[in-house]
Amino acid sequence: MSTIIELIQNGNVTSAKGFVAGATYAGLKTEGEDLLDLGILKSEKPAVVAGTYSENKVLSPSVTLTKNRASDGVARAVVVNSGCANCCVGAQGLRDAEEMASLAAAHISVPESEVLVCSTGLIGVELPMALVRQHVGNVRLHEQGGAELARAIMTTDTRPKENAISLDLPGRRVVLGGATKGSGMVHPNMATMLCFIATDAPVQQRFLQSALKESVNSSFNMIDIDGDMSTNDTVLVFANGAAGGDEICEGTSEAETFKEALAYLCVNLAKELVIDAEGAQRLIEVVVDGAHSINDARVAARTIASSTLVKAMVHGRDPNWGRVMMALGMSGINFEESNVDIYINDIHMVHGGTAFPYLKDAVINAMSVPEVRFRVAVNAGNASATAWGCDLTEEYVILNSAYST
Amino acid sequence: MSTIIELIQNGNVTSAKGFVAGATYAGLKTEGEDLLDLGILKSEKPAVVAGTYSENKVLSPSVTLTKNRASDGVARAVVVNSGCANCCVGAQGLRDAEEMASLAAAHISVPESEVLVCSTGLIGVELPMALVRQHVGNVRLHEQGGAELARAIMTTDTRPKENAISLDLPGRRVVLGGATKGSGMVHPNMATMLCFIATDAPVQQRFLQSALKESVNSSFNMIDIDGDMSTNDTVLVFANGAAGGDEICEGTSEAETFKEALAYLCVNLAKELVIDAEGAQRLIEVVVDGAHSINDARVAARTIASSTLVKAMVHGRDPNWGRVMMALGMSGINFEESNVDIYINDIHMVHGGTAFPYLKDAVINAMSVPEVRFRVAVNAGNASATAWGCDLTEEYVILNSAYST
Repeated sequence: MSTIIELIQNGNVTSAKGFVAGATYAGLKTEGEDLLDLGILKSEKPAVVAGTYSENKVLSPSVTLTKNRASDGVARAVVVNSGCANCCVGAQGLRDAEEMASLAAAHISVPESEVLVCSTGLIGVELPMALVRQHVGNVRLHEQGGAELARAIMTTDTRPKENAISLDLPGRRVVLGGATKGSGMVHPNMATMLCFIATDAPVQQRFLQSALKESVNSSFNMIDIDGDMSTNDTVLVFANGAAGGDEICEGTSEAETFKEALAYLCVNLAKELVIDAEGAQRLIEVVVDGAHSINDARVAARTIASSTLVKAMVHGRDPNWGRVMMALGMSGINFEESNVDIYINDIHMVHGGTAFPYLKDAVINAMSVPEVRFRVAVNAGNASATAWGCDLTEEYVILNSAYST
Repeated sequence: MSTIIELIQNGNVTSAKGFVAGATYAGLKTEGEDLLDLGILKSEKPAVVAGTYSENKVLSPSVTLTKNRASDGVARAVVVNSGCANCCVGAQGLRDAEEMASLAAAHISVPESEVLVCSTGLIGVELPMALVRQHVGNVRLHEQGGAELARAIMTTDTRPKENAISLDLPGRRVVLGGATKGSGMVHPNMATMLCFIATDAPVQQRFLQSALKESVNSSFNMIDIDGDMSTNDTVLVFANGAAGGDEICEGTSEAETFKEALAYLCVNLAKELVIDAEGAQRLIEVVVDGAHSINDARVAARTIASSTLVKAMVHGRDPNWGRVMMALGMSGINFEESNVDIYINDIHMVHGGTAFPYLKDAVINAMSVPEVRFRVAVNAGNASATAWGCDLTEEYVILNSAYST
């Protein structure tokens, strides 16, 4: 079965049937024109839910609450705020997350235990619950509300990031839509990567969880902006079955197709994060192939894409392939230096671990594009992986120093 | 026994008795006034030697040769060049390292097998052996030559880094001197941390190796400039026994004293590296105490000191303690968030995992010094460790992008 995935124009998290969303401005973010900072995504019917979360030992109580509730495998909605991470605030954090869920549940008339919570923003300050209480009732849910939700979760993002795809399964057409945010762990302390995916496909919970984990491993876990891991990172996927038909279960060809589509959407959204990274001017794509194992391929690709020196050389369009070799060696994967080939934007620069003489200006020209691609063939096996990063710019430093004086 | 370690004014790697050094300009580095790029350090008598090396899987053949020869535990000299890393050049690299050792051995009249080799500079280009052959004979060794060696190993360093200390052991006074280089893995591709230490103490080889390893673990392995690990990193210590007396062996109080002195010198030199880091304006010191284990303390201190966002906040004097908490959590060590206290330059900012209200301007003022110190008390045990880093500046980005156009 060959999967045909179609991008839906102006698609977003409410493109899938049976989902509504909306947002309002509660005053948690700095005031400005057209701001939104409190949003809700709701499934008309109870949905199967799966999630992956930050592995940081310091976790926002919003994440703790969501992890617990989502472990049941069913949810109706998620309420999300930007401006405040609800993190490092002691026992008050969990009380506030619970109250925020409770307020949202009452407003949208669903059981409190089926409402999840996400927060993103400044660490170490308490959620201004008075504002949440005052404004949550202003969130109007509607079928085109996905775009509002995407805006409500932005922090230092320069634009909302959302997308949707459709694909045909036997007897039905299903849609997956998503919204994401995050552009560094960042400015000042605005943190976190969040992603919400909603699909009208009916999906078995256990399979949904494993498919999400795999998709995140090849997408959000393969991007690097600044090497830091936030306290609030969360990816949630809701599947409400509104498209009809039998539940998609592990081991079927339908399941493979669905997994492929989910991974495609995740990669698409993850790349949006990197492209919009703070101060970034160029996307870096690192393909490692011929690795001994998929884990080796991933570790190597990520190490190269996140090397400060590789990021800096891309910014300066400096074809210093030695830095790629250094990062490959630093990754510690299985390979022989004398078997390594390196290509920069398809120009073969290194063969068998040593350099071809190259026309420097030609490579500089080849690097003068918005997307710089490294292909590293390690010739140790058959596994391959792709990682994405962005260049390191003076602007990143300026943004993240937040000069206090 | 309480150790009194005295800093020797203008001390360097030839401050210890029985060592001579010298350097010349062979033309490997870009020409300029007063440049040196090829140096030799020699012990008048055979010396016990110990070393630690980069763990990068891509290693310069200069390192490979030195590792092999030093594993015998005895050496007479090291010849070192800057300008070229002798790395990623295929089989030619080992031949060139061997020839460089052989040329130096002939010039200073010691057995070839007792000459070690270090290289630092551009990756991926062959050592210009014609220049090495032509100029190695110009290296004049003398007792004040340590300062020349320190200059000959510089790449993007803005100043030579060297120091020496003396201490009294029963019946004798011993001296340890050292020279180091490295200021990023860097510009354009100028790589590597090198350190040479010479002592006139007589030291048992096995003990010297373990003492060096411990000292490096608490010094060079606790600094971070840009998170990258070079292909050429090497620390060598030579002990020639010229101070006389019995060999210092493991398990004696003398051994403890010597180890303390070696660690002191290593920390001193390692901090010099960070202070001179590319583009750095502030030193970051991170003390983690109350950790469950020394490994936990080290991992946490290093993770905080190397967090891009912590580096950026120090640059901007922005008291965003949440980033310290984020990095602590990211380190994955054993701790409870609700037990964490954080101090920035002795101002108590976080107690029991949550913030004190603080006067922001006061903390900004406290951070407006050349050295910003974080103390993170995790209250999970009794182990502590210190790591050093530097702030991330626009200048670092500019230096390492090496704008090619």
